Amino acid sequence: MSNSIKIIDGGICAVDGVKAAGSRVGKYGLAVVEAKGSNAAGVFTSNKVVAAPVIHTKEMIKGGKVSLVVVNSGNANCFTGEDGIADCVKTIEEASKLTGIPANEIVTASTGVIGRRMPMDTILPLVEESISKLEHSPESSTDAAKSLMTTDTYHKEFAVEVTLKNGEIVTIGGITKGVGMIAPNMGTMLCFLATDAVISAEDIKKALKIATNKSFNMIVVDGDQSTNDMGICMANGKSGVEVAKDGIIDEDFQEALNFVCISLAKMMARDGEGATKFIECKVNGAKTEEDAIKASKSVISSSLVKSAIFGGDPNWGRIAAAVGYSGAEMDQTMITISLSDDNGNESILVNKGEILAFDGTESLSKAEEIMQEKHINIFVDLYQGESTATAWGCDLTYDYVKINAEYTT
Amino acid sequence: MSNSIKIIDGGICAVDGVKAAGSRVGKYGLAVVEAKGSNAAGVFTSNKVVAAPVIHTKEMIKGGKVSLVVVNSGNANCFTGEDGIADCVKTIEEASKLTGIPANEIVTASTGVIGRRMPMDTILPLVEESISKLEHSPESSTDAAKSLMTTDTYHKEFAVEVTLKNGEIVTIGGITKGVGMIAPNMGTMLCFLATDAVISAEDIKKALKIATNKSFNMIVVDGDQSTNDMGICMANGKSGVEVAKDGIIDEDFQEALNFVCISLAKMMARDGEGATKFIECKVNGAKTEEDAIKASKSVISSSLVKSAIFGGDPNWGRIAAAVGYSGAEMDQTMITISLSDDNGNESILVNKGEILAFDGTESLSKAEEIMQEKHINIFVDLYQGESTATAWGCDLTYDYVKINAEYTT
Repeated sequence: MSNSIKIIDGGICAVDGVKAAGSRVGKYGLAVVEAKGSNAAGVFTSNKVVAAPVIHTKEMIKGGKVSLVVVNSGNANCFTGEDGIADCVKTIEEASKLTGIPANEIVTASTGVIGRRMPMDTILPLVEESISKLEHSPESSTDAAKSLMTTDTYHKEFAVEVTLKNGEIVTIGGITKGVGMIAPNMGTMLCFLATDAVISAEDIKKALKIATNKSFNMIVVDGDQSTNDMGICMANGKSGVEVAKDGIIDEDFQEALNFVCISLAKMMARDGEGATKFIECKVNGAKTEEDAIKASKSVISSSLVKSAIFGGDPNWGRIAAAVGYSGAEMDQTMITISLSDDNGNESILVNKGEILAFDGTESLSKAEEIMQEKHINIFVDLYQGESTATAWGCDLTYDYVKINAEYTT
Repeated sequence: MSNSIKIIDGGICAVDGVKAAGSRVGKYGLAVVEAKGSNAAGVFTSNKVVAAPVIHTKEMIKGGKVSLVVVNSGNANCFTGEDGIADCVKTIEEASKLTGIPANEIVTASTGVIGRRMPMDTILPLVEESISKLEHSPESSTDAAKSLMTTDTYHKEFAVEVTLKNGEIVTIGGITKGVGMIAPNMGTMLCFLATDAVISAEDIKKALKIATNKSFNMIVVDGDQSTNDMGICMANGKSGVEVAKDGIIDEDFQEALNFVCISLAKMMARDGEGATKFIECKVNGAKTEEDAIKASKSVISSSLVKSAIFGGDPNWGRIAAAVGYSGAEMDQTMITISLSDDNGNESILVNKGEILAFDGTESLSKAEEIMQEKHINIFVDLYQGESTATAWGCDLTYDYVKINAEYTT
């Protein structure tokens, strides 16, 4: 993070003019975020099975204007055919009637169980309740974030103020939810971002894609890819500060947006279903950026690496194997693998192909100590080129299995 | 299985002239299989990190002759550099001295922990012990199969007799081990096959590749791919029956070899680490064979599908989602998904895009019953073409996590 970025409170409501609210009945939650008159763009799951709100919002957002987002948790509204689309439309009509916002500036998102019709008798009253509570306050952002939660153990919100080179300031805030079915190229993750910057829908799309590739697309919980992923960024222009010119995004704004998305993505990984540990894997020296991404994600995705970290076992052979099958160019006689924690402890396990972590070595005992920490950093240098990537994930635990063995019942 | 194939006892020793033996000290096992004067070929892991015996055996088998295989379990001899290759050579020299078989007709294989030097003080005496017990008997095949085991809960052997169109009979037998790090394109699996057919090394390679693609490459335990996988097929020609002519493999022989490999592969999937249930996923109506393979493996690999099956939850939305992100051509409004068990019970959950398994339906309650069985068949029809594939796997359980959290310690 550069000096020009300052973390602030308030989540998505840290942004001038943005209101939020949330409500919940039993397993169903409903969040609303209002950012009137915003230019907006979205990123969506690449799964070929897609939920009704994904189909509908993709279409609606082509207009480039979003003033209100209505999100429900508990039912994914996926595999629900024409009825599912009709339920999106009904939700939007209700929200439009209550807020006076034109229906074509309202989008929906959903997360939850697949293949069940939306319980509209529950959802519509929640829409009314949330809209009646819309407020520009830190508490409202928190309420909205909480009502997105499914198996999440805590709510996720984040905001920054970024000072551009010319001294002007813009704000970016967001709320999100994780936490299972998180995989390469978006998991069941919903993320709603707002900024007071002045920027066109087209340029938001560009900036959001860059930020997504460095953040949400670099976290893996279980390798399953959701049918419902959606990230929406709304720019209401309240600051009067332009952050793009002739299609070129201001560097500081892009960096701040990346930082917000990476921070939210890391919160998701840390809250992966059943997770007890957070894992960061940085790969250096890859031949291409694609190779760096493949190698770092492969380590983070490996069930064997994840189980070993749950068990506190510095089984680096599994890290080497995961890099080996990732498809990235590598040579096992050149690779370096090290572990570190956030207290400055580091252990080099393999140095340019030479194993340092034999039984009885300081390297191995230090690695065992690091493995007891809650935040494990894995570093791999391939010595094949100059490219680098970082991926984030969590350990594989009894509770992951428990949560997912019992989800619909 | 066609009528020309008959399952017989004896494992790899069902094949005329084949001897085997196994021994074990603590966590280290050692199997030997002798099939003197055999033409032979192998298939190997595609991981870029490869164990010393993989490097060495790949080189040795180019000669097309293998008379003896020496396999140890407990140490993978991987990431052990030049020392690891030297340990393979030492093992082979010892075996050559004891058997009189030329060193260039002996190959090695290993399975176990990565990144530790081979405990040669333990291994060499085991080589001597196993060679001294070499015998042509069903018990010897079993002993050899047992000494391959790591986290396997039972040993795996299989044999058939196949009657060719001209009435001639050949035998094929094999032993194998699983059971973690099993992924698309071979996991930590070792498989040793023998046949009394007359066939050149080149033609064995062809036949073995076909059989491997239909069997070992279609099972997934955890999606991790091993550094040590190896499958070796030896043909000692004892039957005097030729099973290939001008590079064309006899159809019945190929079918029998496929059947042996599929049977052994299914044993591995059934014995996946911590598994309580066996899953078969057949995909029909795919646009291409590649699509059918992608879709079936994606379902079998999904942590969410695997957890749901462990929990006995007919969460078919996860099956649909896994097909959706597999990369196979599909249309969610056309897909059919059904479940069945081995007692003839079947439940169609989604029929050509229409959901039949709503709360309270017979379809759902029948699916819940099927989910209580030990053997779950998932059937998916994509209605995109004529191609089909079947993949095998197991559920994801607390014990998978336990086994792999504690493996090296």
